Amino acid sequence: MFLDMLEEVANQNNSRIILALDDVVCFPSDREGLKRVREEAVSRAFKLIELLSDLIAGVKINRQLVLPLGLYDYVFEIVDFAHGYGLPCIADCKVGDVGHTNRWIATHYFNAGFDAIIANPFVGWRGGLDSVFDEARKREKGVILLVYMSHAGALEGFEKVVLDEEGSGQPFYLVFARKAVEWKASGIVVGATFPGKIIEVKEIVKEESIPIFSPGVGAQGGSAREAVEAGADYLIVGRTIISSSDPRETVKKLLKDCSL
Amino acid sequence: MFLDMLEEVANQNNSRIILALDDVVCFPSDREGLKRVREEAVSRAFKLIELLSDLIAGVKINRQLVLPLGLYDYVFEIVDFAHGYGLPCIADCKVGDVGHTNRWIATHYFNAGFDAIIANPFVGWRGGLDSVFDEARKREKGVILLVYMSHAGALEGFEKVVLDEEGSGQPFYLVFARKAVEWKASGIVVGATFPGKIIEVKEIVKEESIPIFSPGVGAQGGSAREAVEAGADYLIVGRTIISSSDPRETVKKLLKDCSL
Repeated sequence: MFLDMLEEVANQNNSRIILALDDVVCFPSDREGLKRVREEAVSRAFKLIELLSDLIAGVKINRQLVLPLGLYDYVFEIVDFAHGYGLPCIADCKVGDVGHTNRWIATHYFNAGFDAIIANPFVGWRGGLDSVFDEARKREKGVILLVYMSHAGALEGFEKVVLDEEGSGQPFYLVFARKAVEWKASGIVVGATFPGKIIEVKEIVKEESIPIFSPGVGAQGGSAREAVEAGADYLIVGRTIISSSDPRETVKKLLKDCSL
Repeated sequence: MFLDMLEEVANQNNSRIILALDDVVCFPSDREGLKRVREEAVSRAFKLIELLSDLIAGVKINRQLVLPLGLYDYVFEIVDFAHGYGLPCIADCKVGDVGHTNRWIATHYFNAGFDAIIANPFVGWRGGLDSVFDEARKREKGVILLVYMSHAGALEGFEKVVLDEEGSGQPFYLVFARKAVEWKASGIVVGATFPGKIIEVKEIVKEESIPIFSPGVGAQGGSAREAVEAGADYLIVGRTIISSSDPRETVKKLLKDCSL
């Protein structure tokens, strides 16, 4: 259902760019200014969505927006607004707790209207992400798994070679990609900063047509073209668009660059 | 600073139990009831803190409370209230994102008054948790690292044997325990459901006197006595206390059971 919605708007807008609204808010130095800052953040988010609604395929919201704005106070309004343009919304909460907590986290994001949730497969299935997939399935929502992140520290975790029961080793990100297939994830995240990983992972997920979402283009140093050529299906772009003096031109240039 | 505060109240109350307030709220089926439910949750949290203030060493708050209540709307009031009893507050947000997002997450929790934050070392240091430790250091707050979680799925991640540069293997939780020492963490989390892991990890962290926080007692099946005998310094207990008909007696029994 999430993927149908995403695919439909991506085809309609001929775009596979997901707008990451992570940095539309700056926290005030005093609590007095909170209401004003929140309203400004929502207003900025609305303007960006309105401005780019025909050039993007969806919206991603992270905790630097959820924590100051409040999920049920302001964030759900942004989700509603994006839905008004047919744009699906992804909660980038990287859920990775014990099962009963994960279920609550997923429940709240889905209640607030989000269409998919990003989860960290490191916590495993049983008593871990099983509840998130269960909650998503019941509501026809999506679960997107982190497979390789876009920062340098990813080497310390996602890149590590782990041994399986037979004693043969493979890097964690390939284990995670196989879990995405096994668990029937709606997508996986692989940083655009590591196009070589996208190529490797694509080999595993392509038979199940699980799309690859790549953050890290622009501010974090990743190239849109390289990510797409490597096999990324969607690019998650935030600061490059948000801090641009002309967001529409920036998105158009990105679309042209990688012929998305 | 966080550890000083924690140690002081633990000695004063002769208790090493951290009250997990995770399950004091039930979400309403309609948004209409939200305000009432929020106020009831805050009121329940206040009552529990007041009732147990001389029997516990601190309070832990997870996202199943933060998401429905809102960090700056209701959660900060609970933190303030706990501080009124000298109780430190731990944000169990299991932060594990890219650096600039992690810094925002930490900033918001610290702004709301939290004294320490729980982080997932799987995302590594550079461009990962470096910013969280930096933010905590500047504000004299604590960072507690997940080393082994309390659920069955922990086997799929924390337990996996990873190869180091020299090709020798060790389970991830021991790698994480060493990172806690290297990064000067204020504490580590090891599930009470795996007392054997507590013993192993204690060997690594004891020389730096890094305390072990153990969740999973009671509802999740862990034994308080076994965890403490294995080397747990603090027990994180939620549902066993919250759902008890007599929370004071339950805490007293727990304290007696493990002579904490």
